[in-house]
Amino acid sequence: MIITLTTDFGARDHFVAVMKAVILGIAPRVTLVDISHEIAPFEILEGAFLIHEAYRHFPKKTAHVVVVDPGVGTSRRPILVEAAGHFFIAPDNGVLSMIYRDGRHKVREITNQRYWLPRVSRTFHGRDVFAPSAAHLAKGAAPASFGKPLQDYLQLTAITPNRQSRSSWSGTVLHTDRFGNLITNFRADEFDLRGPFEISVGLQRVTRLALAFADCAPGELFAIFGSSGYIEIAVNQGSAARILGCGTGAPVDLTLF
Amino acid sequence: MIITLTTDFGARDHFVAVMKAVILGIAPRVTLVDISHEIAPFEILEGAFLIHEAYRHFPKKTAHVVVVDPGVGTSRRPILVEAAGHFFIAPDNGVLSMIYRDGRHKVREITNQRYWLPRVSRTFHGRDVFAPSAAHLAKGAAPASFGKPLQDYLQLTAITPNRQSRSSWSGTVLHTDRFGNLITNFRADEFDLRGPFEISVGLQRVTRLALAFADCAPGELFAIFGSSGYIEIAVNQGSAARILGCGTGAPVDLTLF
Amino acid sequence: MIITLTTDFGARDHFVAVMKAVILGIAPRVTLVDISHEIAPFEILEGAFLIHEAYRHFPKKTAHVVVVDPGVGTSRRPILVEAAGHFFIAPDNGVLSMIYRDGRHKVREITNQRYWLPRVSRTFHGRDVFAPSAAHLAKGAAPASFGKPLQDYLQLTAITPNRQSRSSWSGTVLHTDRFGNLITNFRADEFDLRGPFEISVGLQRVTRLALAFADCAPGELFAIFGSSGYIEIAVNQGSAARILGCGTGAPVDLTLF
Repeated sequence: MIITLTTDFGARDHFVAVMKAVILGIAPRVTLVDISHEIAPFEILEGAFLIHEAYRHFPKKTAHVVVVDPGVGTSRRPILVEAAGHFFIAPDNGVLSMIYRDGRHKVREITNQRYWLPRVSRTFHGRDVFAPSAAHLAKGAAPASFGKPLQDYLQLTAITPNRQSRSSWSGTVLHTDRFGNLITNFRADEFDLRGPFEISVGLQRVTRLALAFADCAPGELFAIFGSSGYIEIAVNQGSAARILGCGTGAPVDLTLF
Repeated sequence: MIITLTTDFGARDHFVAVMKAVILGIAPRVTLVDISHEIAPFEILEGAFLIHEAYRHFPKKTAHVVVVDPGVGTSRRPILVEAAGHFFIAPDNGVLSMIYRDGRHKVREITNQRYWLPRVSRTFHGRDVFAPSAAHLAKGAAPASFGKPLQDYLQLTAITPNRQSRSSWSGTVLHTDRFGNLITNFRADEFDLRGPFEISVGLQRVTRLALAFADCAPGELFAIFGSSGYIEIAVNQGSAARILGCGTGAPVDLTLF
Repeated sequence: MIITLTTDFGARDHFVAVMKAVILGIAPRVTLVDISHEIAPFEILEGAFLIHEAYRHFPKKTAHVVVVDPGVGTSRRPILVEAAGHFFIAPDNGVLSMIYRDGRHKVREITNQRYWLPRVSRTFHGRDVFAPSAAHLAKGAAPASFGKPLQDYLQLTAITPNRQSRSSWSGTVLHTDRFGNLITNFRADEFDLRGPFEISVGLQRVTRLALAFADCAPGELFAIFGSSGYIEIAVNQGSAARILGCGTGAPVDLTLF
């Protein structure tokens, strides 16, 4: 079985390795895959995007641990979610909102302390709660044994664009990728850019749609249907984030003419 | 068996992958776990902290390779250490000092060249000496076959705070984590901050103890008993390192009233 | 079997994890090793250097996936290369040039779409073409079943130095490592620096050869035979790249007297 890890812990510290140590101590045969540990600290929306992009490419029955957890030490609940044949283990803070939107899902509060480490700190539930829960799941523990189903789990609304008028919507940048491409929350299959359109982001307007990066001159701003299924703002061989001076969380307005 | 890797090699180069290649060539079934490769170049104290924090969460018999090695190419010795049921393979430059302090340990010089690569370069002992030694250990080579016990191995003294007066101590920042929290070398179980205290670090004084990050207002400086067992200087949803203008190696003074 | 991954995708995004997901879905038992994902975006020469440095330390039959792919979405071809007992899967853009130079090799165009994902996007062939091809190879698919041999595959000439006169050559910096050492394309076994020489790089001249980093005073610039077999420009306990103000791709001139 595969366990994936998505956190805002970064690569400098021992935190990710400690989670892996706890998992391997319980379930030595799992295959561990890092999705990203470079989520901006406490940026729940970026975590929601990245796990949603990655999970569906993994085999069914994979367990995905997502730890972006500004509320650690408070009463926010740890949850186990079953969706699309996958498992998700995370704090109940909305970081799985994009998973919920995809279709049927079952959310449980993880209350069975047999699946936690014996002593739970107030600052590192990734190690004490989420990692061991995932390992026990990988070893075959039944989802129902983790705790009771929840109905009032947290869902973020900022994930989908808001309609402002008959032909205009306000959205947001979900993620800035390594190349500086801005991934917006406008889905390519819901917003048809083949006719005339205008996207305003940062201080500029984008009116050109490209089918491939190489279709445009170096330096030219364009919209593109990204590999993730969202409309992205990009520049051939350059960084749209740098040219536009904005990144994750920035507002994006779309008008279709 | 698990082999962990802790180095100052960074993620840009091929060095870590080459160490893994050498290990997998000798012991194809080991599970490899990265602890950190982002130790500041040649910062032995930070390496000492990170391996000490991480190792005890792994199963017994794990082999931990630690390569922070400013003296590569000189006569500093490669060593194999047995402690707390774990193995450590490193240069003898003090990077295992915090392991030694934990209790009984046996240190051997690695002199058996059967466990090295046939040709040893002057610049990359991680590949030529440390990685293959760990792989042979994982394959079952007896610790005693690596070389003779050493008594005069190097121990760093900067790791514990110095008493300055009846109620004051001078210590240091062992590590700056990704969130900008400053991890000091004051152990939470040795220094009782529940009464009045003052910590001076950078140009500021910290007098508040918090039990969880969320207990404080965003932006407020406080001390906290970190998940590592050390007193940390932190800011809720911010970077103490940036606010205080200091990081790893900075002096920290504690007074208990 | 081992599959290695070398890309310019960075660690922030989900792209590398998605490639791993695709591979593990097809070939669950492979061992995955990251070589580097921090190649500067679109820097084919740096990718060529890093895969060449790393591959020969892995066991034979390892499959190396290299995705530095500025031409994605255009008609550049995906290729499978057999060389030195290893497999390489990459776009045909010269990123394997240093492998070709090492000796006998066979290059095939990957045209068998049975080894691709059912739907191939225009922007992410790492996921859709290269990762699944490597996984099918690891599962035992015969190289000949991927496609026909190619003769006109791309080779970069910038990889070897150009002779300028009887005793001078112009070369380039192939890679800047994490420590700021500049790895040039002058091979240590082809250019004898034991007599008098002058290397000019950035605005400075280097005339000293060192055998180990510790042989020089901190701050002193020197040439050294690096662990990779190339002449490197380095500074003991400092960054040559910062002192010289240059990095990957910078010109390097060598004169032997």
